[in-house]
Amino acid sequence: MEEPEGRARVIIEGVKPEIDSGRFPIKRVIGEKVVVEADIFADGHDTLSALLLHRKEGDSKWVETPMEFLVNDCWRGSFVVTEIVHYLYTITAWVDRFKSWRKNLAKRVEAGQEDMSVDFLVGAQLISEANQRAAKSENQIMQDWVKTLQSAELAQQDKVQLALSEEVTLIMDRYSDRQFAVTYPRELMVSVDRDRARFSTWYEMFPRSCAREPGRHGTFEDCEARLPYVAQMGFDVLYFPPIHPIGHTNRKGKNGVVAAGPDDPGTPWAIGAEEGGHKAIDPQLGTLDDFRRLVNKAKEYGIEIALDIAFHCSPDHPYTKEHPEWFLWQPGGTIQYAENPPKKYQDIYPFNFESANWRELWGELKSVILFWIEQGVRIFRVDNPHTKPFRFWEWFINDIKKAYPDVILLSEAFTRPKVMYQLAKLGFTQSYTYFAWRNTRWELTQYLTELTQTDLLEYFRPNFWPNTPDILTEYLQSGGQPAFMARLVLAATLSSSYGIYGPAFELFQNVPREHGSEEYLNSEKYEIKHWDINRSDSLKDFIARVNRIRRENPAFHSNLNLCFHATDNEELICYSKHTEDLSNIVLVVVNLNPNYIHSGWVNIPLEPWGLGTQQPYQVHDLLSDARYLWHGSRNYVELNPNICPAHIFRVYRRIRTERDFDYYM
Amino acid sequence: MEEPEGRARVIIEGVKPEIDSGRFPIKRVIGEKVVVEADIFADGHDTLSALLLHRKEGDSKWVETPMEFLVNDCWRGSFVVTEIVHYLYTITAWVDRFKSWRKNLAKRVEAGQEDMSVDFLVGAQLISEANQRAAKSENQIMQDWVKTLQSAELAQQDKVQLALSEEVTLIMDRYSDRQFAVTYPRELMVSVDRDRARFSTWYEMFPRSCAREPGRHGTFEDCEARLPYVAQMGFDVLYFPPIHPIGHTNRKGKNGVVAAGPDDPGTPWAIGAEEGGHKAIDPQLGTLDDFRRLVNKAKEYGIEIALDIAFHCSPDHPYTKEHPEWFLWQPGGTIQYAENPPKKYQDIYPFNFESANWRELWGELKSVILFWIEQGVRIFRVDNPHTKPFRFWEWFINDIKKAYPDVILLSEAFTRPKVMYQLAKLGFTQSYTYFAWRNTRWELTQYLTELTQTDLLEYFRPNFWPNTPDILTEYLQSGGQPAFMARLVLAATLSSSYGIYGPAFELFQNVPREHGSEEYLNSEKYEIKHWDINRSDSLKDFIARVNRIRRENPAFHSNLNLCFHATDNEELICYSKHTEDLSNIVLVVVNLNPNYIHSGWVNIPLEPWGLGTQQPYQVHDLLSDARYLWHGSRNYVELNPNICPAHIFRVYRRIRTERDFDYYM
Repeated sequence: MEEPEGRARVIIEGVKPEIDSGRFPIKRVIGEKVVVEADIFADGHDTLSALLLHRKEGDSKWVETPMEFLVNDCWRGSFVVTEIVHYLYTITAWVDRFKSWRKNLAKRVEAGQEDMSVDFLVGAQLISEANQRAAKSENQIMQDWVKTLQSAELAQQDKVQLALSEEVTLIMDRYSDRQFAVTYPRELMVSVDRDRARFSTWYEMFPRSCAREPGRHGTFEDCEARLPYVAQMGFDVLYFPPIHPIGHTNRKGKNGVVAAGPDDPGTPWAIGAEEGGHKAIDPQLGTLDDFRRLVNKAKEYGIEIALDIAFHCSPDHPYTKEHPEWFLWQPGGTIQYAENPPKKYQDIYPFNFESANWRELWGELKSVILFWIEQGVRIFRVDNPHTKPFRFWEWFINDIKKAYPDVILLSEAFTRPKVMYQLAKLGFTQSYTYFAWRNTRWELTQYLTELTQTDLLEYFRPNFWPNTPDILTEYLQSGGQPAFMARLVLAATLSSSYGIYGPAFELFQNVPREHGSEEYLNSEKYEIKHWDINRSDSLKDFIARVNRIRRENPAFHSNLNLCFHATDNEELICYSKHTEDLSNIVLVVVNLNPNYIHSGWVNIPLEPWGLGTQQPYQVHDLLSDARYLWHGSRNYVELNPNICPAHIFRVYRRIRTERDFDYYM
Repeated sequence: MEEPEGRARVIIEGVKPEIDSGRFPIKRVIGEKVVVEADIFADGHDTLSALLLHRKEGDSKWVETPMEFLVNDCWRGSFVVTEIVHYLYTITAWVDRFKSWRKNLAKRVEAGQEDMSVDFLVGAQLISEANQRAAKSENQIMQDWVKTLQSAELAQQDKVQLALSEEVTLIMDRYSDRQFAVTYPRELMVSVDRDRARFSTWYEMFPRSCAREPGRHGTFEDCEARLPYVAQMGFDVLYFPPIHPIGHTNRKGKNGVVAAGPDDPGTPWAIGAEEGGHKAIDPQLGTLDDFRRLVNKAKEYGIEIALDIAFHCSPDHPYTKEHPEWFLWQPGGTIQYAENPPKKYQDIYPFNFESANWRELWGELKSVILFWIEQGVRIFRVDNPHTKPFRFWEWFINDIKKAYPDVILLSEAFTRPKVMYQLAKLGFTQSYTYFAWRNTRWELTQYLTELTQTDLLEYFRPNFWPNTPDILTEYLQSGGQPAFMARLVLAATLSSSYGIYGPAFELFQNVPREHGSEEYLNSEKYEIKHWDINRSDSLKDFIARVNRIRRENPAFHSNLNLCFHATDNEELICYSKHTEDLSNIVLVVVNLNPNYIHSGWVNIPLEPWGLGTQQPYQVHDLLSDARYLWHGSRNYVELNPNICPAHIFRVYRRIRTERDFDYYM
């Protein structure tokens, strides 16, 4: 061990946030705050000073922010990230001899100590030493202070007044003796994204099912015509399953049967055919120009088109011929198709990431996403990232974001939790979650507590989907329209990002392929649909309302400050979110039982909202527009799922009283 | 970023135990196990292999132990430390292609897949590759296996049988392809101590109060005569306050008053006078030879003498003249005495660790402990370590333990929790705690849960003291003899190390200097006492019994497996400890109210002890020798504090039944 500087007495530990000893960055969006806490202490009773240091990656100079002592040796500081770059932060702290001296002097004064002459001489010495480090402009005044403290004539109370003055404090802080300062050994990183990384509202749709007339293959032009519909519902991301040519060999038929009929279109995830692979467009959808026009048109509606990144091939993909070395070959000379024994996926060839030519493979895959970025796409949903190596993703995402920091990648990893969390650590912007399978109050509370009350909040950004083309849950299958409404409200208000697969969702499609399956009967994955989006019972207006509420209430724009509140009925879940300044407080109550009316008492957290125990306050149901005057911590709710299974209240802390009249008092 | 090996697919994270990213070692005693857990996973569905690696510091070769998969990507392995040295450990893991192949083959067989000819060829290829890495002696048999799997004639079931055989498994594990293995980037450390570091029973005594006749200053010879008394009570560490010459300047008188009378002996912590400093002995106690004889005599009783290391000086200490540069000088030419304004300690000069000569100071302080180590002392209680720099202690302890790994240091830091824990991280073997002030069931449960269910278990070894010369708690002041008995049982059974300050404890001295003070009236710190250790109401026999129970029941020798159990009476605390193999289970119930009889129902954890819900079991009260037949999880207890406020049960899981007779059945 190198001999340490024995006089550096401060310990800095327990720094938060810090992910895996600083191995991974935390995530923020532009304008967000980074609050850093740490345990900072030294031996003995001296007073410390601590600074939070931060800088943009590449900058050489740290910006210093004073940290504040909280309690139990814990200190806190914060800074705001203002650019879409990486930031670094760390902490420096030292024993502050002048602050210690000043604190002791104040104690002596308070205890009425009579002779403090030696103390004033010690203080004079400290100021004199600081003067050596000070700017020339301060030299004179500091020298005057030294003389004052050394003076044999001046009254003790004048010296005390000077020593404890704000002026002296300010200058002595500036020239504090940092000779033995200790700096935390790690520089921790913040990865900053644009706002939509945190707050986004997704709509998934199959372009081929968008034809304006039945019986035709949809086109990008049809998608353009669908944009007003999507925009009116309030979505800002429109995500398409793969738009590439679909393979013929081993193509799957209706309901996923092995042998496709001659007219079956196949699943869009069987990527690659004679017409091309990952950089080509299925000619039935249109041309690259059509696609670019759609992307631009969508922008006019405030919508970004998101594409699917699915890194595997159909047997007809050009790569299988051009780059046979990227696949795993079996004895006998065939390419190994995807399988999870005994299940076989003969229409999908995975890449062999253990290929000796992995570098070329990585490079080609990167060129795929760069191709679509160049067409104007910035948001991608990544298919099954958990079946490709973690190191690949880390390299891939870092490399892309260096050139295009505004890219957003949604990880579609429905797998074991630690694998999902690892992908988020490595750089995926958002992640699918287990939300679809969390139905009871206990399940939802447990899961959301894990996501928002642990380190996960720092790097795992959940995107809640009540349904997807692969997931029709039992809750939706059995609960009818109220189940769809309840799950929509839960997704939209629990998570700042959520999405639905439509029009199946708003038309509450809920028939499974067979009992016990989560596949849709006659799934859109294997056939072209024509949806009657103007059906009178569509949930589109309800969805539009929920999305407008989300947009208008900033408390819903992040998952900070999510808090669950007790109810006396297990079927009622109650939670709130609020902005840091409490200017926007929202309270949600959902009846989780789609079949029956449920009522009960909910417990409201008065104190954190600054409400007195007897003070009335108004809750305004933004769904029904009803207003209720509540008071105290327990209030009654009743929800009929056949009308609406949820309240989304905005809480107004201040209501008018007689004191608001001019002539009161 | 250096380009990674893209084919290394495994992630190893969440390694436990790991203190502050490996900055500090965990602690064990010789013979203890180190159980290591980690999250280990890769992309996809392949099977992994993981090894726990450990070695003694200085050894170049790792010892490999296979890790076992538990659940949720968590793996576990363990090793035993067998020498008093430092050990290092880390983890290596890889995607095991042969294991993956074998698992898939088994699944295919189970699913009744008909043609597996390609699979056998893949397996043959893997064995053939492993054969390149194998020892010559295995080449032939492995080649035979390859031929078997390649054979066109052999039946499929013969090939399956071979592939899944233990023999193939064993050899293929040995030559597994570790080409893309990932090793955890940190090597973590275990600091190993001798057994007494974990399990020790301390008795603190002022040698000067040990004179066989009243009115005389005690000597080391008197201490020798007191050894049988201490040994009979079952203590194995006998700790003395400082034994050095005591300063005269500003000496404190009776009850700590500022002006000492001519006959006042002063506090032993005012170290240093004309006769010498930290390496000298107060001549009134005897000579260095007398001391060494006492140390050896104590060993015959199984007792180690522990000394006090108090790094500060009386104004008369020779250092103040020989090394004025080690002290803080005030303007006016006086040394700064200890103070915590407005409190002043004029009889104590602290060292100035910010002295430019800190290196020499450090060296001299090390020579102090080395001096006493050379006299045969290996256990030290370190006074106020939190007022000396952390870096000093880290250097000091590492340096001493390199030469004397059997040294044990008890940290006397009664201060804020993070400071106490930091000292333990830096290397203190044991630590004083807040136990003295934890009286209620809730307080004790919270505190012990913090100490034994968090990372603290890995590095903070508590030593519980119901009293010290500085601490006479309100509970002891007000509770009479039953309070002393209850606190003794709690200290002795909750913590594997504990100690008392006697004879004040066994004679239940409980009169404070004044109301609200924790100081003893006429404290032994400032005067010589003569204790009547043979008083008939002494607790010495009770203490002897408790200490024998501790010695005879290995469950008490560590704080592993401490578990609290519910009772329906807040005044009754119930907890158990057990050895890993359940051969020793102890259950303690204490009535925390020293004034009244309390009774109630205690909840017993049947399942972890392997007991059926209706199975009777015997509990044997090792204090009263009473035996009770209990069954089920709820049982009744009643404790009269005036008889004995506690049960210490040994639990016998097996009782005799009619089936134990020869002629049964």
